[in-house]
Amino acid sequence: MNYLYINNKKYKFEKGNSLLNIIQLNKLGMESPCGGKGTCGKCKIKVVDGSVDDLTDEELKFLNKEELKNNVRLGCLVYPKGDITAEFIKSEDKNHKILTEGYMPEFNKSPMLSKKAFKLNKPTLENNISLEEILEKQNININNDYDILKSIPSIFEKDNCTVVYLDEKVIGIECEDTTENLYSIALDIGTTTVVASLIDINKQCEIDCESDINPQKEYGLDVLSRINFAKTNENGLEILNKSIIDCINSLIIKLCEKNNINKENIYELAVAANTTMMHILLKINPNSIGKAPYSPVFISGKSIKAMDLGINISSFGRAYLLPGVSSYIGADIVSGICVCDLHKTKKNILFIDIGTNGEIVVSKNSELSSCSCAAGPALEGMNISCGMRAGEGAIENIKIGEFIETKVIGNTKPKGLCGSGIIDAISEMARLKLIGSTGRINKKSMIEKDNNLKHLSENIIDENKKRRFVLDTQNPQIAITQSDIRQVQLAKGAILSGFYALLNSMNIDIKDLDEVIIAGQFGKHLSVQSLVGVGIIPKELKEKIRYIGNSSKTGAIMTLLSKDIRKEMECIAKDISYCELSTEEGYERLFTDCLKF
Amino acid sequence: MNYLYINNKKYKFEKGNSLLNIIQLNKLGMESPCGGKGTCGKCKIKVVDGSVDDLTDEELKFLNKEELKNNVRLGCLVYPKGDITAEFIKSEDKNHKILTEGYMPEFNKSPMLSKKAFKLNKPTLENNISLEEILEKQNININNDYDILKSIPSIFEKDNCTVVYLDEKVIGIECEDTTENLYSIALDIGTTTVVASLIDINKQCEIDCESDINPQKEYGLDVLSRINFAKTNENGLEILNKSIIDCINSLIIKLCEKNNINKENIYELAVAANTTMMHILLKINPNSIGKAPYSPVFISGKSIKAMDLGINISSFGRAYLLPGVSSYIGADIVSGICVCDLHKTKKNILFIDIGTNGEIVVSKNSELSSCSCAAGPALEGMNISCGMRAGEGAIENIKIGEFIETKVIGNTKPKGLCGSGIIDAISEMARLKLIGSTGRINKKSMIEKDNNLKHLSENIIDENKKRRFVLDTQNPQIAITQSDIRQVQLAKGAILSGFYALLNSMNIDIKDLDEVIIAGQFGKHLSVQSLVGVGIIPKELKEKIRYIGNSSKTGAIMTLLSKDIRKEMECIAKDISYCELSTEEGYERLFTDCLKF
Repeated sequence: MNYLYINNKKYKFEKGNSLLNIIQLNKLGMESPCGGKGTCGKCKIKVVDGSVDDLTDEELKFLNKEELKNNVRLGCLVYPKGDITAEFIKSEDKNHKILTEGYMPEFNKSPMLSKKAFKLNKPTLENNISLEEILEKQNININNDYDILKSIPSIFEKDNCTVVYLDEKVIGIECEDTTENLYSIALDIGTTTVVASLIDINKQCEIDCESDINPQKEYGLDVLSRINFAKTNENGLEILNKSIIDCINSLIIKLCEKNNINKENIYELAVAANTTMMHILLKINPNSIGKAPYSPVFISGKSIKAMDLGINISSFGRAYLLPGVSSYIGADIVSGICVCDLHKTKKNILFIDIGTNGEIVVSKNSELSSCSCAAGPALEGMNISCGMRAGEGAIENIKIGEFIETKVIGNTKPKGLCGSGIIDAISEMARLKLIGSTGRINKKSMIEKDNNLKHLSENIIDENKKRRFVLDTQNPQIAITQSDIRQVQLAKGAILSGFYALLNSMNIDIKDLDEVIIAGQFGKHLSVQSLVGVGIIPKELKEKIRYIGNSSKTGAIMTLLSKDIRKEMECIAKDISYCELSTEEGYERLFTDCLKF
Repeated sequence: MNYLYINNKKYKFEKGNSLLNIIQLNKLGMESPCGGKGTCGKCKIKVVDGSVDDLTDEELKFLNKEELKNNVRLGCLVYPKGDITAEFIKSEDKNHKILTEGYMPEFNKSPMLSKKAFKLNKPTLENNISLEEILEKQNININNDYDILKSIPSIFEKDNCTVVYLDEKVIGIECEDTTENLYSIALDIGTTTVVASLIDINKQCEIDCESDINPQKEYGLDVLSRINFAKTNENGLEILNKSIIDCINSLIIKLCEKNNINKENIYELAVAANTTMMHILLKINPNSIGKAPYSPVFISGKSIKAMDLGINISSFGRAYLLPGVSSYIGADIVSGICVCDLHKTKKNILFIDIGTNGEIVVSKNSELSSCSCAAGPALEGMNISCGMRAGEGAIENIKIGEFIETKVIGNTKPKGLCGSGIIDAISEMARLKLIGSTGRINKKSMIEKDNNLKHLSENIIDENKKRRFVLDTQNPQIAITQSDIRQVQLAKGAILSGFYALLNSMNIDIKDLDEVIIAGQFGKHLSVQSLVGVGIIPKELKEKIRYIGNSSKTGAIMTLLSKDIRKEMECIAKDISYCELSTEEGYERLFTDCLKF
């Protein structure tokens, strides 16, 4: 048995594991967006002492001279041969900005959850029927619920009780009159972020909201990497599951403490999430989602005891999982469709949730069709040489004119670019023809010949047969590389071709579209200029774009406030057809066409 | 903090606890039939070292000279003042004899439980619906069962599966074709004994049976002592619950090993038991059963996941609890009524289950009424000076003629008398007028004057103002004391008066009774002679007595083999009226009359 020494602690490991693997199995908190395949370069770690293999070519791609000098390596490519001492590289992941507000339509409020107080009858010697029967005679039917049965003796110690109903069904009984306290939580579990809203069911409104980064990001940035992590590690699924459950519980505690609420008075949790996140939440093996024929284990709506999931709300509280459509059109999208009334519209509407996975829905006079495309994490600033999350020091907006103007989160010295910054940059480069339609950065010599651009020629740098565009010649570390452009190009190509394929399959011409709705946390940060500039959305739709915000969360809130909405969601999920792009005829050619700027 | 040293181990305790209490809280296995009240004298223990209070008068009643010399004390009356060393007195509780066979009527067999094998359809790229939907299309509806949902990915790794149904409901799905293996267990939990029958549902028959002493006996011999134990000890209910669950699990293991069956192939458990045993089995506070107005928490039939009770059968197996009538007419009696078809008879039948608690049911042309009476444990050999269980060395039959003939279990030297032995002895003593109608043992001088009895005069011994009748003058330790006779007299009075009161309330004359059915483990061991001789059953019914055996277990088996029987039991339980003797007019006088021999 060997030991890893890190953070002044030691951890056992068996030879044959990568350093990343050892760190993740011990839950020490290390990100691996690509899932440990050596392709993202994000699992950098300093090897202080111990025998390891020589540097690989893959690592050389991601490490600069300073790092090489300091013995920095990629954790996923280092296999310790014996005891090893390592040090983490400082992360820059604090002060994240997450969008939690959003548009909510008008709807009829009729919550599933309700409470009613009762004065309890008591048995007498003349009528000593069972306590269960006394409740039945007061119309409190506990059916076959063992947990409620166990609570009956303590309930009868008092004169009054409160019955908690979900729809018409008794889910729990509490001592005394507690009708004043009736809360639920709406939860949006994104691949990247988790948002929790506290809902007062009596007042029928949202009273607070908290959010956090999805801690599963350590084990892969996109759903496929996480599915792979669950598959290739013995306790992989348990680790992923525990990390999201812990995250949810800590958000609940935060909301309770801030609002002076007892978590025992939270009785329901409505969850909107993509299909993989739902599987992991229920600790259900998501393996089938990741390989052909891409069948999920379940997509229907579920109501499960929160306690069975390890979620700490009322001991008899329930978790309601919104229904999804398929492996890649999840409950988060169904939620968004419902928020936008896409299932009721008379218009032709395109709904698009831009993220690591792009989900696209078209409503043609309320007939719904959907597709999804693997955009990859580039649009979110991942797999990008200077990419970073939308945290302090991230360039989030760029304008290239006489000078290059940048807007940095936190107004500090820039450290890198977040997703919107990258898209802005490439959009501007395309507009100014610094890049050609194939995506290639034009030669310095060509730029110098163009009067409008020649002031930017110094920003073009050729080195080691690679070309990059630096944003600030004084700070040449921050740049857009040819490879970054390729990554964004692939993402744009995937989304745009999905969009066209879906319109084709529904026989809608692009000019017949009445509206383009941009949903999701991330989409909100992309300006119309950027979206159109980089070519994710065709120019002719520029005036028709509307941002809807986090419609996944909003839909979850609506299911808590309305039984009807819950039924509607079930209908929507059943009625959407799903278009599998990979089997669509001519899709490959369409995709290639869509790569062009 | 102080320590108890016993069995070469040490156990912490807090001052203020009795020695019995300390031993029971540490689950060291000590019986306390009276529940620690100092009235049964069964918790004898040797104090080897340590400071304790002086002997109490109560203890003097139960300890002989030898025991006093050896520092034997009653654990319930000794309160250690500091560290203490003690030794257990050897117990004689092995090789118990428990009745497990019984009469079973004809009935229509249609088990609730069934299995069906399926060839699984698999998803394709053209039809990649969820695995849950594929099951639905094959008519396998898992409803909202989270455990089944979690099992789906592993089920789809194979081509075939087997669905387990309870009635029409899917309760679980197994890989491959397992239809050959389908078992259930019928369980009779008596206050004193636990019987488990293994049922092959495919063959629709009982294939084996095992039994054990109810380990809760350590904490009180009758239900009231156990309720009291649960009430007065912080973890009392948990201890009682754990002891019965452990006992059930060990019976299941025994049955599985003997019959080469996997416990995963046992899918249901049907439980017949009195109402207190049911409450403890479900870890539901039985306190309300023990005090006016004697309301149980529940009496309806229940189906609960076996796993939730801690019972180790199939992970998705269920426990079905038969329905009862009231706190003192439990599911065991409902079970017996069904076995005897009392609810369908055209006759007038008296059904009686003799035990610590006597339950009496009268069927008048299929109209059912019941009562229960606290007979106390005397009839089972408890609270009797030489009383012991029906184990090796127990005198189980006695005939007094020219000599006193005894039959001893195991044909060894007699160590004491079990219940049937005591009743035989008193029945014979009453027949020969060795005791008068008030129950008093006649004077030696009077016996000497009677030619037919004078050879027994040496057996009458007066000592310390107390009289006793020894069975063997060479072995004068084994005797029937005046106090023993009083105990039996109280038991007989309770049963006989209950019996008359019930007949009165239903307007049936004793001569109109067509049949007297003796049910239960214990009743079977009491001969007609003894029952009539001691006066539990009036002489005029002598020819009408029929023994039914363990009808509680038999009824439980029937519920496993027939849905209809399950429904019938529910109807029976609702249709029996219950007569509360304590509120019946003139009951006190009737009881006094019934004490006479």
